[in-house]
Parts: sequence; structure tokens; C-alpha cells
Amino acid sequence: MTSPDRIWTAGLVIIGDEILSGRTHDKNIAQVASWLQVQGIRLAEVRVVPDDEGRIVEAVNALRAANDYLFTTGGIGPTHDDITVDAVSAALGVPVVIHPEARALLERYYADKGGLNEGRLRMARVPEGSELIPNRMSGAPGIRRGNVILMAGVPHITAGMLDALTGKLEGGAPLISETVGCWVAESEVAGLLREVEEAHDECQIGSYPFFRDGKVGANFVIRSTEREIVQSAMDSLTDGLATNGYDFTPGGI
Amino acid sequence: MTSPDRIWTAGLVIIGDEILSGRTHDKNIAQVASWLQVQGIRLAEVRVVPDDEGRIVEAVNALRAANDYLFTTGGIGPTHDDITVDAVSAALGVPVVIHPEARALLERYYADKGGLNEGRLRMARVPEGSELIPNRMSGAPGIRRGNVILMAGVPHITAGMLDALTGKLEGGAPLISETVGCWVAESEVAGLLREVEEAHDECQIGSYPFFRDGKVGANFVIRSTEREIVQSAMDSLTDGLATNGYDFTPGGI
Repeated sequence: MTSPDRIWTAGLVIIGDEILSGRTHDKNIAQVASWLQVQGIRLAEVRVVPDDEGRIVEAVNALRAANDYLFTTGGIGPTHDDITVDAVSAALGVPVVIHPEARALLERYYADKGGLNEGRLRMARVPEGSELIPNRMSGAPGIRRGNVILMAGVPHITAGMLDALTGKLEGGAPLISETVGCWVAESEVAGLLREVEEAHDECQIGSYPFFRDGKVGANFVIRSTEREIVQSAMDSLTDGLATNGYDFTPGGI
Repeated sequence: MTSPDRIWTAGLVIIGDEILSGRTHDKNIAQVASWLQVQGIRLAEVRVVPDDEGRIVEAVNALRAANDYLFTTGGIGPTHDDITVDAVSAALGVPVVIHPEARALLERYYADKGGLNEGRLRMARVPEGSELIPNRMSGAPGIRRGNVILMAGVPHITAGMLDALTGKLEGGAPLISETVGCWVAESEVAGLLREVEEAHDECQIGSYPFFRDGKVGANFVIRSTEREIVQSAMDSLTDGLATNGYDFTPGGI
């Protein structure tokens, strides 16, 4: 589904003390961001908050008010520090209920693993009015209530849930990007980059420097929803690089 | 410097379209978080925002009002999309000025690289009243204005700036953590984890499941500012695991 006449945006709330302590390196920002691009939805803001109900409620409400979609990762497991369902229900002003299908699914999943207990049953709890997102990797499903989507924190489980959602969210025209790399200090071509961006409406140029093999270089990424604009800006930029005597590598270095 | 009688907190604003597009995988959350732990400062919240002045101002002001320190990464380079200094100056209500020491430093750095140009001179701009943070890796310094600290986005440059700040920020007692790993589904021991946490004040227990070699397991992390509390909670937890017939691995799996 696409509605190319406007920009669709999403907010993402990453929930977990383990990210804020540095113990766990987040991988979900990048994978959710890349997936959203393909759905024609732009990730507008991410907030990382601790396992604290008040802080989760605040972030969820701020980002769902400002965006078309609100995603969370983390805190939907069986242990006492998994409070995402409670916090999001509070944010939405709805009660927490046991989802019968989730309960049945967990009963089957744990049938040969000791059966349901109090902790496992926590994973059948959802904000009232939710539907389930299939989880191919482990027992507990993700949760969708309208434009609010709760996913696991473990990256490969998150990936499976994103896959189950592919093509199911309304979005706009995907952002198209093209990259060109150059062995140049970005500070030498800052003026050129600015000129090319200013000459093309509805186009952003990002400059991403790196240091490799003892040399500085940069990749320049041109983004727009219009392929013609990306192409025109890329032509201007590569002409400018060539005129100034720089070799460049289409696709990036 | 430590003031162990209260908790010191920091907010972090990650600035850059490239993180929100999924093009660049953030590494700064984890490295800033780990560094802050050692300084006795807790990372309370992270926000990732695009290269948009209004959005940066909003995030900077929200997180500096709520915390003792405010860090940013990204957007202090030479190109048109590097707008962090402008946005933070606007947030602080001070003008942007050229820092004479930064200018001198950049003049020396670029002396044999073509000299200063308009883009390179951008990296000498600071919010009025700032001091510089040394950058061992490349020319442009980081910026500190009171409790607001602006750092580079490229992770190894950020790391050098953090190193230069080590021991220079007032903080509290570092959070102490101990880990124990166990080949168990966390859902089997969720009740035990909750009981141990409830029996110990000022102590958090995190449960971090994994799937490896075809088996499920979890690491349990006990955190407190008091070593005795961590030790007592760890004793209770490992006793409980042993009583239930689980082997465990001190230090984590």
C-alpha cells in the first residue's frame, strides 16, 4: 500500500536498561530504520529509555503524537523487568488483557518444555484491542494495536516480526538514494556539496567521512523520493568532483 | 571527582540523518554509556534526531533540563549538513562565535593540506563561552560549554574525546554489576528473579536471554552502587538456581 502524496513517519522507542548501561549494543535502530525505508516510511526519531513505566509512557506518547506509527523494541519477555505491555497500555489508556490466541500459542509452544507458568503467561498479556504479530523464532508473539507496534528486543526475533509486517503498513514513496565515494577530505568539497543541494529542491545530500588505509575519504549520499532529482544532483556532483580533479567511485567506497 | 550521595545522570542526543536512514549503524550509544558508567554517571535517555535545527533544539533542551549532563554526537564537521553548533547555540540562547584557539589549531592542522577554507573554518565555530575538547585523531576539536558536551559522530574520534574528558566530570558512585549465566529459558526462573530483586533494596536484576548452539540460555545481571548488595543478591540468586537443579556460570556465558 502506498500513498505517495505525503510523507509517512514513524517513531521508535528502544526499551531497556541494558542499552543505557552499555552492556548490550543496540542493533534494532539500524534494522528497523532500513526496513522502514523499504515500506516508504521514514524513521523520524528514536528514544532509548530505561525499564521505568513513567519514562516509557512519556516517550511512547510523545512519539506516537508526532508520527504515523510508533514502534517499540524490548521488554515483552517473561521476567519482572519486562514492563512494555503495562506501560504502553497505560499510555494508550486501555487495560491489559490476556489475548486468548497468544495464550493458546504459548500453551502449544511450552507443552513439551514444562508447560505455562506465571512468567510465561505474562507473554500472553496485551493492551486491550490488540492483534498478534507472528514470531517464527520463539514462543512469544509481537503485538500490534492500530499504529502502535510492540516487538521483541533480541535482534533476530525483531527481524522475524518485521518480516511478518512487510507490506502490511500504509506508507508513501520510498526514499531513493545514490552514493558516490571519493578519496577526498570532505572539508575540501564542502562548498560543492552545499551548492549542489541548494540547486535541487526536495533533495538531501549527506557527507560521511572515513579514514582507511592511511587516507581520508568520504561517501556522499543523495536522497530524494524522485529518481530524476537524485540523478540530476548526482550528475552535478560528479561533474563538480571531476572538474576539481578528483576521481570518484559510483556506489561508494 | 565523586559525590556519592546522589545519582548523577546524563542525556545523549545522537544527531544525523544517516542513523535514522539505517545507512550508518550507531556505535556511540554503547561507548558513551560504558564510559559514563566508569565516571559514576548514568545514561538516563538517548534521542536520535535528524539534521534539523528545530528537532535538535527540542531534544537538547528536553534532555539537559532533565539531567546533570547533556552530550551530543555528530554534526560538528565541515559540511552543510553539520548544524549541531548552530542548533545547540540556539538551544542555549547564545551566539555562535569563532573560537580563536580552534581557529589556530585548524590553521596548523591544514597548513600542509591546502589551508583553511570556508568549510574548514566552520569547525572553529562554537557556542559563545565554550572551551575545547582535544581531538587526537583529526583536526576539529570537541566542544564543552558547562555541562553541555558536543562530540564527533565518527566513533573512533568520539572515543578520543571521551578519553580526554576522563576524570574531569563530577559524578557519583559507579554502578557495580555482576553477571551469572545459565543454560535455562528465562521463563523458567522468572519467579526466582523477581523474588531476589524484591528482597534487595537499591538493586536491579536484568535478564538477557540468548539462543546459541541450538540451546536457550540467559545472563542475569545484578546492579547496585553497593558491592555488598550485589554480592548478597548474587548469593540468593545462585542458591536459588542450584536448588532448582540448574548449573550456572559466574561471570556469564
